[in-house]
Amino acid sequence: MSKSKYEALGASATKSGLHRVLDQAGVTDSLGLFAKVTPDFAGNPEYYSVVHCDGAGTKAIVPYLFYKETGSRALFANLAQDALVMNLDDIYCIGAPESLVLANALARNARLIDDEMLAELIASYRSLVQQFQQLGVPIVMSGGETADCGDLVRTLLVDAVVAGRIAKARIIDANRIAAGDRIVGLSSTGRASYESSANSGIGSNGLTLARHALLSNTYATAYPEVVDPGVDPTLAYSGSYRVSDTPALLSCTVGEALASPTRSYAPILARIYDRLGNKVHAAIHLTGGGQTKMLRFGTGLRFVKDELFPIPPLFQLIQESGNVGWREMFQVFNMGHRMELYLEEEHCAVALETAAEFGVEAKVIGHVEAQAEATNSLHLVSSVGTFDYSL
Amino acid sequence: MSKSKYEALGASATKSGLHRVLDQAGVTDSLGLFAKVTPDFAGNPEYYSVVHCDGAGTKAIVPYLFYKETGSRALFANLAQDALVMNLDDIYCIGAPESLVLANALARNARLIDDEMLAELIASYRSLVQQFQQLGVPIVMSGGETADCGDLVRTLLVDAVVAGRIAKARIIDANRIAAGDRIVGLSSTGRASYESSANSGIGSNGLTLARHALLSNTYATAYPEVVDPGVDPTLAYSGSYRVSDTPALLSCTVGEALASPTRSYAPILARIYDRLGNKVHAAIHLTGGGQTKMLRFGTGLRFVKDELFPIPPLFQLIQESGNVGWREMFQVFNMGHRMELYLEEEHCAVALETAAEFGVEAKVIGHVEAQAEATNSLHLVSSVGTFDYSL
Repeated sequence: MSKSKYEALGASATKSGLHRVLDQAGVTDSLGLFAKVTPDFAGNPEYYSVVHCDGAGTKAIVPYLFYKETGSRALFANLAQDALVMNLDDIYCIGAPESLVLANALARNARLIDDEMLAELIASYRSLVQQFQQLGVPIVMSGGETADCGDLVRTLLVDAVVAGRIAKARIIDANRIAAGDRIVGLSSTGRASYESSANSGIGSNGLTLARHALLSNTYATAYPEVVDPGVDPTLAYSGSYRVSDTPALLSCTVGEALASPTRSYAPILARIYDRLGNKVHAAIHLTGGGQTKMLRFGTGLRFVKDELFPIPPLFQLIQESGNVGWREMFQVFNMGHRMELYLEEEHCAVALETAAEFGVEAKVIGHVEAQAEATNSLHLVSSVGTFDYSL
Repeated sequence: MSKSKYEALGASATKSGLHRVLDQAGVTDSLGLFAKVTPDFAGNPEYYSVVHCDGAGTKAIVPYLFYKETGSRALFANLAQDALVMNLDDIYCIGAPESLVLANALARNARLIDDEMLAELIASYRSLVQQFQQLGVPIVMSGGETADCGDLVRTLLVDAVVAGRIAKARIIDANRIAAGDRIVGLSSTGRASYESSANSGIGSNGLTLARHALLSNTYATAYPEVVDPGVDPTLAYSGSYRVSDTPALLSCTVGEALASPTRSYAPILARIYDRLGNKVHAAIHLTGGGQTKMLRFGTGLRFVKDELFPIPPLFQLIQESGNVGWREMFQVFNMGHRMELYLEEEHCAVALETAAEFGVEAKVIGHVEAQAEATNSLHLVSSVGTFDYSL
């Protein structure tokens, strides 16, 4: 099979080479936990600790281009939510933690990223922490580090750490996914009750592909700091849009759609766990790997996703503008729901009702079957074709 | 006063603009703790939690150039120690923690940084954690994240997180520094009993200045990925050395000296705390800010440093090659000791003996006086001149 567009742009949906290296170093393990845990900080055998790092990735380039074009620094605030939620929602996939601490790590080119941009970001972290506390997410903010290192970072790298503690009794082990389970998807678009505006659904992965597919090549020439000079110039910023354009498909600018802050499902998951406990077999955060993310959990399973959400307009635009294969689109992007729960049929209603209480659309998007092989596979039926994937 | 060489290269020893912005956002605080703490993860009022992020910074460029020139990936292993110790030694400045977890965050340009380089790094994290455990540092390793984001990262960004828990009874509050205290410096050079080779003393800060001062401009042209194109070309890699050169002043190559892994003082501090407890008024990790780092602790203090260690050869070479002012050298680099303890005179002997047990040279390098003003100042007497600094 030919190299995917995403790989040609220097990113990877599978990271297969890297996994091989890390396996050799003995770092990965076979636990069915979505985020890695360690023994409790406080030595209590009934608890785990969790220390997680992730960030906004190349999404940070969007607020930068938006600023260059419009003079507004406002979208930098969104990056705080991206970095925080990429950690928070991974952690909530292993259960509801008892306590969490957020710290942030910024690395910038101080020549291009000014203190006011960082102030937007830091202020956003603080208000998000307060908001999440009110939504039942027990998180506090610690400090952070800002490194000025233009020789390494072209513009801005926004990473965050969330560390905390979770009771073993509340752990969700995704290896409990079983044949017969229904898959409940939680929409990545629309406006949740705790959000201030509608979300495009983008999250914080696939932004390398999304940017290059949508945005105009004038950016690569006007702002060479937003592109790896080693990327194939026929692929770099090969779209036709400017970040200030509002295409017919979207109800906001391309910049605002691409920088739409990563939705958190943590408040919803917390309430579902309160109601269903370990009846939730798994919660899967569909980030890198998109709709194939759950393939590494359980064994001998055939995942069937045949009632997906409609493809959100932004993903349609990316596909069309970048002429990306639909098969690849589902491997890179969430395509409509960024969180999914695995439940026996009788428990689905509780999950659906809980999501509705927060204004987030949810539905049964598929189910799980047994298959003869010990490996796992995904059979995905969508409005744009049927695709099969396996590990 | 004219812009410093370090600032002209896009870094900062004081980060004064950034501190102003973060103060406005209400993030910094007035505690005299070297690292920020939050309420205990486990809810015990007798404990604090600590979540700390820091990294190897632009030091990562050195192993890259060394690989390009010699074909050896060996120096990538050193970066794990750099990122770990930049966190660990900050945390040990607030006291001896009861438990610690390490997680790592790598961001790379996958076109230039291959999986084998990362494998060196990850393997090094694992062996360091084992080694530190044997030295009485209660640390375990969690997972990590590798982001492929060449549009943001020219080569490689190596960050780490260390999170843990510390008893309030063991906290060192650096605002307890008092007039009359002696300052014990722990050497940054030589070979500690737990190190496999002699250390150049460099640590993980000031590498932007060190690289550009020492290394040849041929690197900027042959490997444009190691320099911010916006840096003044007369300053970028304006030295005369190649990383494989061994100048008369050094006993190893320039690359090995610049990539010498950041020494940890944690095992020594742990034992000193066991022996002296809160009789240690402060432990100061001399990273960004160099010998002026302690200026923000205590009030109305005049720090006198008049018995410094001899300036290590690598720092002499950087000064000479970059024609950097000595005043700036002491503000950017540790110049001979990267850790200092503040103690009453009667307790100094215990600290000196403990350092000796680990093969690390230590001595009283100065003392603290009261001054009339409410601010702090530093009077530094060295073999190359006398310099005064204030906040």
